[in-house]
Amino acid sequence: MNNSSLYSSSDAASTPISRYPVPDLNSLPEDIRNRILAVQEKTKFIPNVFLVLAHRPAEFRAFFDYYDAIMEREQSTLSPAEKEMIIVATSAANGCQYCVVAHGALLRVFAKAPLLADQIAINYLHAPITARQKAMLAFALKLSRTPELIGESDYAILKDYGFDDEDILDMTSIVGLFGLSNRLAIVTKMQPNKEFYTMAREAR
Amino acid sequence: MNNSSLYSSSDAASTPISRYPVPDLNSLPEDIRNRILAVQEKTKFIPNVFLVLAHRPAEFRAFFDYYDAIMEREQSTLSPAEKEMIIVATSAANGCQYCVVAHGALLRVFAKAPLLADQIAINYLHAPITARQKAMLAFALKLSRTPELIGESDYAILKDYGFDDEDILDMTSIVGLFGLSNRLAIVTKMQPNKEFYTMAREAR
Amino acid sequence: MNNSSLYSSSDAASTPISRYPVPDLNSLPEDIRNRILAVQEKTKFIPNVFLVLAHRPAEFRAFFDYYDAIMEREQSTLSPAEKEMIIVATSAANGCQYCVVAHGALLRVFAKAPLLADQIAINYLHAPITARQKAMLAFALKLSRTPELIGESDYAILKDYGFDDEDILDMTSIVGLFGLSNRLAIVTKMQPNKEFYTMAREAR
Amino acid sequence: MNNSSLYSSSDAASTPISRYPVPDLNSLPEDIRNRILAVQEKTKFIPNVFLVLAHRPAEFRAFFDYYDAIMEREQSTLSPAEKEMIIVATSAANGCQYCVVAHGALLRVFAKAPLLADQIAINYLHAPITARQKAMLAFALKLSRTPELIGESDYAILKDYGFDDEDILDMTSIVGLFGLSNRLAIVTKMQPNKEFYTMAREAR
Amino acid sequence: MNNSSLYSSSDAASTPISRYPVPDLNSLPEDIRNRILAVQEKTKFIPNVFLVLAHRPAEFRAFFDYYDAIMEREQSTLSPAEKEMIIVATSAANGCQYCVVAHGALLRVFAKAPLLADQIAINYLHAPITARQKAMLAFALKLSRTPELIGESDYAILKDYGFDDEDILDMTSIVGLFGLSNRLAIVTKMQPNKEFYTMAREAR
Amino acid sequence: MNNSSLYSSSDAASTPISRYPVPDLNSLPEDIRNRILAVQEKTKFIPNVFLVLAHRPAEFRAFFDYYDAIMEREQSTLSPAEKEMIIVATSAANGCQYCVVAHGALLRVFAKAPLLADQIAINYLHAPITARQKAMLAFALKLSRTPELIGESDYAILKDYGFDDEDILDMTSIVGLFGLSNRLAIVTKMQPNKEFYTMAREAR
Repeated sequence: MNNSSLYSSSDAASTPISRYPVPDLNSLPEDIRNRILAVQEKTKFIPNVFLVLAHRPAEFRAFFDYYDAIMEREQSTLSPAEKEMIIVATSAANGCQYCVVAHGALLRVFAKAPLLADQIAINYLHAPITARQKAMLAFALKLSRTPELIGESDYAILKDYGFDDEDILDMTSIVGLFGLSNRLAIVTKMQPNKEFYTMAREAR
Repeated sequence: MNNSSLYSSSDAASTPISRYPVPDLNSLPEDIRNRILAVQEKTKFIPNVFLVLAHRPAEFRAFFDYYDAIMEREQSTLSPAEKEMIIVATSAANGCQYCVVAHGALLRVFAKAPLLADQIAINYLHAPITARQKAMLAFALKLSRTPELIGESDYAILKDYGFDDEDILDMTSIVGLFGLSNRLAIVTKMQPNKEFYTMAREAR
Repeated sequence: MNNSSLYSSSDAASTPISRYPVPDLNSLPEDIRNRILAVQEKTKFIPNVFLVLAHRPAEFRAFFDYYDAIMEREQSTLSPAEKEMIIVATSAANGCQYCVVAHGALLRVFAKAPLLADQIAINYLHAPITARQKAMLAFALKLSRTPELIGESDYAILKDYGFDDEDILDMTSIVGLFGLSNRLAIVTKMQPNKEFYTMAREAR
Repeated sequence: MNNSSLYSSSDAASTPISRYPVPDLNSLPEDIRNRILAVQEKTKFIPNVFLVLAHRPAEFRAFFDYYDAIMEREQSTLSPAEKEMIIVATSAANGCQYCVVAHGALLRVFAKAPLLADQIAINYLHAPITARQKAMLAFALKLSRTPELIGESDYAILKDYGFDDEDILDMTSIVGLFGLSNRLAIVTKMQPNKEFYTMAREAR
Repeated sequence: MNNSSLYSSSDAASTPISRYPVPDLNSLPEDIRNRILAVQEKTKFIPNVFLVLAHRPAEFRAFFDYYDAIMEREQSTLSPAEKEMIIVATSAANGCQYCVVAHGALLRVFAKAPLLADQIAINYLHAPITARQKAMLAFALKLSRTPELIGESDYAILKDYGFDDEDILDMTSIVGLFGLSNRLAIVTKMQPNKEFYTMAREAR
Repeated sequence: MNNSSLYSSSDAASTPISRYPVPDLNSLPEDIRNRILAVQEKTKFIPNVFLVLAHRPAEFRAFFDYYDAIMEREQSTLSPAEKEMIIVATSAANGCQYCVVAHGALLRVFAKAPLLADQIAINYLHAPITARQKAMLAFALKLSRTPELIGESDYAILKDYGFDDEDILDMTSIVGLFGLSNRLAIVTKMQPNKEFYTMAREAR
């Protein structure tokens, strides 16, 4: 079994999925291989981020542990769609193709809104979301792009919209982790799987 | 035993070390408590980042696993001082007091250069470092502040200075993780321990 | 016959296609109505830009005359896909949903490349295009976002890639007209037709 | 009859009025020549923009039709001086010599204020205009330089000053068309006629 | 004798020449009054900067001593016109009406070029000056607007154009002093005398 | 007596204190030498700015006269610590090592706050100062970095905090003079004396 059969979904004929060596699944430590196979079973394909980051196993483990800790935090009151909105908006500002395309697909899935990911990636001010969600994205973008300007007045605005300090910390962790993810994807030239581009684009 | 005796070093009388609840060491999961006590034994005080991030144990674990994976990666050819230069320069651009002060102290320690942290925090172009190190910091700052502008020409410059793709990935991971760290420290209003401000300021 | 049957494709149930009144086709001057019907026959739906701009007939006529003069200029050596690349890249920088979505669809059609529009909208530096096309987009983005910085050295780079002064004027006219179009679409809150979001997303 | 006698006003001895070929009036299509001669009769010289844009007749016609549609729109409640204020302020931000100098002259004429064009070109915040006009210019400059940031709150400010949606659309069309004009003038290196520099500089 | 007869040239009927009290000439310390009268004799009117800054005599003395030290430095190889180019270009970037208008007039006088001040104020890249002068202005603008980015490579470019370190220090002093002057003029709302707007606008 | 014994405090073994010739004290005009000796007697070492600027005596005299006029203005209601806060914050934004380090030391001395200089240099929004002082620094930074944006609303905010027009003029003079100082220090590569780095870092 070689990798190409596993991720036949990628644009194998043209651009490699990373500027860095992509390990063969069989060569990976067992915990990493199992983590990837579990994702594959659920998603039906292996998102390239798993194969690209597996180049450095210790960082792979920390990254996905962090990802799970933030995105699956039980007490969070941000909806899965709202978390993806933050990822899509900040990744677009950072110019990260992998994250905009892959998390854009997840946003379409979670929000059941086939147009929303493109709308937020291009300009969240013109997206059909609530004023509360726009305040969340305004904060996320300011924190992502100019963290040095964040101060008390920013928290005050969020609290006026009903967000509390734990929500603000959730937003911060998402902005921070995907800021890291954006930079890894940019420098590795990580390619989004083709499936993500078209996933959930039709209303159901 | 209460926390205040443990981190008597902090400016307890005035500013709290976080806008968020700081857990009592004894209330923490054992693995986290042990990790903190081990640091305390080595450093002689508990850097506030450990106590502040312990507010969310799962994220704490992922953060420090990531930290260790990057900063203690054996194959890395970046020196400990060079890694700290990247942290200090990018944290200064992001306006993060905790990271500039704490990692400034580490930079003074590792580089055995009592003035270097301030010089790099203020303006690396005027710091007494090599042209190769300036190229490294130029890349780190560009990746940190405008990741959307990074492209092939940036890697070409680094390679002219003898850096290879794994060095570039080391720089990227550091920029990314401390970008996350900066945003966590800013939003929690994490205070640097007083010890860091004065550590290693005298030539030895 | 009412408009809703004509542009049933738009998301009529939710967001109106413009913040401004949208004229009924039958109320329009004959030349404008005929122009719109001709587009409808060719495209199978009426792109909303025609209905939105028809609010001001004199400006409608000038806009589409300009559009035709630039986009259908016979002597131009820029390919239809290259013209759309410029429109997509600059419209993304300007945050214009209508232009990114509608011209993204045209780019997919002309380039026969189902992923290319998203790749260029997010970050052209990571798109699978030629170095010559990247130079063209670098110029277009600089001219669009910071025209005050354009000078002789910019033309010299383009000429190194084989572009001549007439090509540069073509790029300029496209950047300029779609800069105007972006601002009209933003202020009218012009909505892209749903068809554009999914058009030509499958490889053929 | 050659061109040099027609636009003897230009600085013929030194800088050409365009980086592109400037057609001889007699070689132009009749409609374009007549349009130019009509302007010359009214203005007593031919503004160089007419000769420079005549290099591409189809674009010439669309440009001046658009110009007339916007600037001579009967229902507009913006005064001629206010329209010129928008052009001068945004053209200055875009670094366009032709438009600042030529429309600065028109602003002096329309406002009967010999100092106003320089004041607005340099910094409208310090110009002796009304608070309402400053709000108009603040919007125009934001729309011109960062259209991606325009949102509902911008319209709300303008409406507080008594502007309605049609006024906002007038401002938008002016910003957009002169944004196009600025980029054409910059890339062609279009020279302002000398007459514009001194026109209406004395109080009457 | 009251002030209004002394500076009848100012737009006394409308805008005051400063947001701050403007002292009566007779109330001023003798050295300051004599300095002002000497200027008046030479210029035929009192440039408002003298009257506005006289509000604080100690700062007045230091400012004009500095001005003389820099602008009349005998060893300087920068021509008077080149010094004024630097002042006009950086003052325009800083949005300072007084300095652009007053030093624009001096530039026209020194360069015997009636169009040059407007050309440089709007966009020096399009002004008819030498490549060497453009390099000088590029440096001046970078030093003025983003001093933190100045480094060795900037000096290398200037030296390629034949400037030496003393020339660079001349440029620096001019940029610095007029940066101070710009901020004083902006905060005092210092008005340029009307004479400056029209001075030397005709070729001789 | 040679200079090195006078400023033994500087890092004489490594980096020279200026890119420009540093005059020997004995070669200086008597008034300048006396001024320097007086400072040395008071401070116990000669701050390098005196030696570096002495390269040009006329500018030296004007600079320090200006410095005294502003910093020792008797009527000023800004405290010495507040003046140093402005210098530290704006010099950090301008990337000036000499001014951040030397005036950071003075700030620690005047405020009797050993951490304050680093806190303000890194990010004043996170420093333990009053809301009124934050408003003062927000104004100072805006005036320093984007003077063209300063307008009536900025003064209104300061007045809400109890500052009057003379306070605003004090802030302006400080921002302006140290903006000049920053640019001189950057271009001369002026090195801070080692003493400044450690001065007043311990609580008393």
